[in-house]
Amino acid sequence: MTDFPAAEFGARLARAQAAMAAQGFDALLLNTEAEVRYFTGFRSLFWQSPTRPWFVIVPQSGELIAVIPSIGAELMGRMWVNDIRTWPSPRGEDEGVSLLIEALGGFDRIGVPMGEEASLRMSLTDFRNVEAGIKGRFEDCSSLIKALRTVKSAAEIDVHRKICRIGSNAFARLPDVAGAGDPLAEVFRKFKITLLEEGAEDVPYLVGGAGQGGYGDVISPPDYTPLVDGDVLMLDTGSTLQGYFCDFDRNFAVGHAVPDAQAAHQKLWDATEAGLEAARPGVTCSELFTAMSKVLGGASDIGRIGHGLGMQLTEWPSIAAHDHTELKAGMVMTLEPSLMIDETRMMVVEENILITEGAPELLTTRVSRDLVVI
Amino acid sequence: MTDFPAAEFGARLARAQAAMAAQGFDALLLNTEAEVRYFTGFRSLFWQSPTRPWFVIVPQSGELIAVIPSIGAELMGRMWVNDIRTWPSPRGEDEGVSLLIEALGGFDRIGVPMGEEASLRMSLTDFRNVEAGIKGRFEDCSSLIKALRTVKSAAEIDVHRKICRIGSNAFARLPDVAGAGDPLAEVFRKFKITLLEEGAEDVPYLVGGAGQGGYGDVISPPDYTPLVDGDVLMLDTGSTLQGYFCDFDRNFAVGHAVPDAQAAHQKLWDATEAGLEAARPGVTCSELFTAMSKVLGGASDIGRIGHGLGMQLTEWPSIAAHDHTELKAGMVMTLEPSLMIDETRMMVVEENILITEGAPELLTTRVSRDLVVI
Repeated sequence: MTDFPAAEFGARLARAQAAMAAQGFDALLLNTEAEVRYFTGFRSLFWQSPTRPWFVIVPQSGELIAVIPSIGAELMGRMWVNDIRTWPSPRGEDEGVSLLIEALGGFDRIGVPMGEEASLRMSLTDFRNVEAGIKGRFEDCSSLIKALRTVKSAAEIDVHRKICRIGSNAFARLPDVAGAGDPLAEVFRKFKITLLEEGAEDVPYLVGGAGQGGYGDVISPPDYTPLVDGDVLMLDTGSTLQGYFCDFDRNFAVGHAVPDAQAAHQKLWDATEAGLEAARPGVTCSELFTAMSKVLGGASDIGRIGHGLGMQLTEWPSIAAHDHTELKAGMVMTLEPSLMIDETRMMVVEENILITEGAPELLTTRVSRDLVVI
Repeated sequence: MTDFPAAEFGARLARAQAAMAAQGFDALLLNTEAEVRYFTGFRSLFWQSPTRPWFVIVPQSGELIAVIPSIGAELMGRMWVNDIRTWPSPRGEDEGVSLLIEALGGFDRIGVPMGEEASLRMSLTDFRNVEAGIKGRFEDCSSLIKALRTVKSAAEIDVHRKICRIGSNAFARLPDVAGAGDPLAEVFRKFKITLLEEGAEDVPYLVGGAGQGGYGDVISPPDYTPLVDGDVLMLDTGSTLQGYFCDFDRNFAVGHAVPDAQAAHQKLWDATEAGLEAARPGVTCSELFTAMSKVLGGASDIGRIGHGLGMQLTEWPSIAAHDHTELKAGMVMTLEPSLMIDETRMMVVEENILITEGAPELLTTRVSRDLVVI
């Protein structure tokens, strides 16, 4: 067993099966990395290869069935899964299709995530062939999966605490890593190394920007423009430990803090304070959005100001006007207010929190209200 | 423009449109990272967030249409794309669906990759809603996309050369990074740092294993077991530069090379030699598979012994018995023979090559026939 004891996976399966019984699903067919890992514990970077599909079937009662390429049999065999069915993939024809049709044969109503945030990590042709080959029918189970995965277990939360601490420790070292004259791409490279040195297993996500008193966007790769006095440098990392993410950013003023950037940072800090105050079980994401937006005094055009966090860099729910998901104790979330300083410059400040029965627990080391000058 | 000049993208579009005319596609609808980047140049790690779908429409004549979340508008605006249509995602309802229906309205036969190695990075519900909302029809265009992307341009090849050199330089430093007593997970961490120091932009993929005279599988995350004398350590990295991958491994004998591990390494080296000899334009992947397998003297159960390489860690084609794709000059490939030393121990040796009109060009620094002892 790699990341968690078998009891963790037993509890996940029991929660899933209870929900399936309540919602009338006879089985679930799952084929994305996070879902397969959630139920089996199977963790591998090999998902980056698009060649082979991987499947897990969750029956309403009884054990999981893994239907996977034989290259994964050894690793899956070390998980808690007993029923592992393999084929020598790739073989051109029948990439798991006949095995799936056989394994799904006894089920009538079969859940497949087809809705919010879902994708299909197999070819559409193969999916349709499976659909045509079974006597049961596929129906959307996105909300069931969302309800399961958004509330983290104590073991998952513990990993989140660790990776958020690692990220915070790495950001504390940023003044030693970057300063005026350093090309942005070199800052990225050095900060990745810092994250690894601090104990991150991987740094799948590092984005950011730099510019005079703010930056233009938050999803670009870096170029080699050197930092200059008056720049604001933002780094936003999704680093991982045991396959669980932190996702937060920090802003730094190069040389000195330009007044409107300083004011923006303070306002974003205040918006996060309002979020920390409002984030309680039973509050909806849209209510949390409103509480934070009031401080910002205007809408962000990013569409949301925070989200769930877990085995993926972002997960449901969204802290957004449209999202009426109720917060529950055990949810790990980001608070990520952003604002436009002017037409071309923006700023984002992000923290990671755990929803508890009382006040949320900060998983990241809270940033100072004033910009840190480097 | 971030990674390539506009002429590169113009040439890609022209090749695509010629193939579309020949095959009768009025438009293509693409929604995965590699395809969107291939046509637009849009490169962002933000694809790791599953929340928002992204789309590019390639018409048989005229310009690309990008249909994307507004969070990407700034970056897409710096690409060569002029027609950018956005919506404030996430908004719960209509995640690009109505924009797609409108943009696809004038087309009859619309290609969507539905076959080999394809996936659908949007919800199935939304896909079906788009399909129901247009008067045209979706048909599989996987082979068209495969034909385009497998033959790399001079500019793409140049990036591959650089990242393979970076990987080779990092592996040359491995004896300074790892040795007896080092826990495997620490070796992984240090080797990632080495890759970054050597100039890799990212290390999305690092897998490997270690064990007495061989290892059990090649897709597992590392544990903290220390290396001991007699182990074979294997590290396999997919590192990137400008979003293009190298993908190769190296094996190291800890303390001394166990005889059967040494013999396995030599046999795998010889199989690669046979591959280098056989890999010529016009030869099929299955013929290349046969040439290499003869040296191995038995089938690998991994299903293939090499594959295409590019913006993804693995791409079509597969060097496998079932794959009759003809090699063409400009294909970047891995040669990856593997064998079982006994029932539990295996070995893999991998090189990256460029198919040319003559002998293939080695992109990686050819490993020595004997195991390097660390």
